[in-house]
Amino acid sequence: MKFVRFRDPAGAIRRGRLENDRVQFGSDSYDLESDEIDVLPPCEPSKVVCIGRNYADHAAEMDSDVPDRPLLFLKPPNTLAAHGDTVTVPGGKERIDYEAELGVVIGEQCRHVPVEDAMDVVEGFTCVNDLSNRDDQRQEKNWVRGKAFDGAAPIGPVLATLDEVPDDAFVRSRVNGELKQDGSRSQLIFSIPELIAEITTYLTLEPGDVIATGTPEGVGPLEDGDTVEIEVEGVGTLAHEVRVPDESR
Amino acid sequence: MKFVRFRDPAGAIRRGRLENDRVQFGSDSYDLESDEIDVLPPCEPSKVVCIGRNYADHAAEMDSDVPDRPLLFLKPPNTLAAHGDTVTVPGGKERIDYEAELGVVIGEQCRHVPVEDAMDVVEGFTCVNDLSNRDDQRQEKNWVRGKAFDGAAPIGPVLATLDEVPDDAFVRSRVNGELKQDGSRSQLIFSIPELIAEITTYLTLEPGDVIATGTPEGVGPLEDGDTVEIEVEGVGTLAHEVRVPDESR
Repeated sequence: MKFVRFRDPAGAIRRGRLENDRVQFGSDSYDLESDEIDVLPPCEPSKVVCIGRNYADHAAEMDSDVPDRPLLFLKPPNTLAAHGDTVTVPGGKERIDYEAELGVVIGEQCRHVPVEDAMDVVEGFTCVNDLSNRDDQRQEKNWVRGKAFDGAAPIGPVLATLDEVPDDAFVRSRVNGELKQDGSRSQLIFSIPELIAEITTYLTLEPGDVIATGTPEGVGPLEDGDTVEIEVEGVGTLAHEVRVPDESR
Repeated sequence: MKFVRFRDPAGAIRRGRLENDRVQFGSDSYDLESDEIDVLPPCEPSKVVCIGRNYADHAAEMDSDVPDRPLLFLKPPNTLAAHGDTVTVPGGKERIDYEAELGVVIGEQCRHVPVEDAMDVVEGFTCVNDLSNRDDQRQEKNWVRGKAFDGAAPIGPVLATLDEVPDDAFVRSRVNGELKQDGSRSQLIFSIPELIAEITTYLTLEPGDVIATGTPEGVGPLEDGDTVEIEVEGVGTLAHEVRVPDESR
């Protein structure tokens, strides 16, 4: 099954089913791309736990080693943006990058989850763009200006249950229609169960929390007016525009 | 004025006034330390934005330079703990440290706040213990295992309005009654308005969000059964116990 969270024409927040590109809730039916509804992030995370360098080819393109345990960092709720949004990124920077990622949405409060039980706490998968402000990321000890700026985590539009997404699902990005990244879930260095076990050794995960599982090679810079699409096989396509303010602010 | 958030004997969550060490709500009155009430964190942050090395003497004791702009890191909501709680820290570590900090509680949603207007967005001050798992902090690029484990941000019990807290308020910690840290708000390298301006250049702050302004020299390790007290002049004293599990888990 596929779910979409949205604000309906009356302003009510609903979670409907996506069937044949139409969002169904009760007896109402909307086109996913219609102006009638505002698509919202598919869940309400208290935190997004992100994984750095979880594809060997991306670690290589960043001149970085593959870590010996998952490289964790955090995106707080101010980073959320939705399908169809225009994300205003920090101005005055040399390089703001897209990063296509498979997002894992947690379904239940959990801690100390063993690897073998980890998929039981997953509600489903979604698409995440791990927007990255490289100017500051390169200078910071912790990536806050670099990774936690407002709108740095466009997410959605679909939450797909586990059965919808193959083990080797592709993870792609396109900028203005041009394919930029084309990785596969099967390339993850640390698997989803391993990530859940490691994170919950230290942190409780809440329903709606998201794990952004890392990005494959092919990251690159964005410019004002670009349209980014993040597609995960079996989930669908997240699309958003980018606005770069003229001046540093 | 001083406020305390608590669960009353009927289980309702209330914010009362603290007057003469008694919590008043309507016609009800409780001793702050009584078993009748459960003291809660004084606010409900969507994120705690923490500042590293914001006292020169602490940077020196950590063999670190003073940063040329605020060193930011994040504690998500899973880190919250309250006055009177027993915090179970990660087991199997060499060193889990206390860090006494002045906490700034944000009162309104804000972004791009100029330094000169920054105190207008502050609701008040509280006490924070920035518990730190040094084993992992030293190994991590981003301090998630090191600083964002469950219970790593004991906070409260009082939210004191600005007028209650002098510009040179002391910031102290005691472990089992012994004074360990004794700094002053006047020693902050980056002032509270400067921190708010810098953070809101990148991130929207929400009502209830907290800025933990950094710790003075004198940090040190905790052991199972220790009682930590964090006292900020004009605010009050946060006290909690520490439990260290036997094995690594």
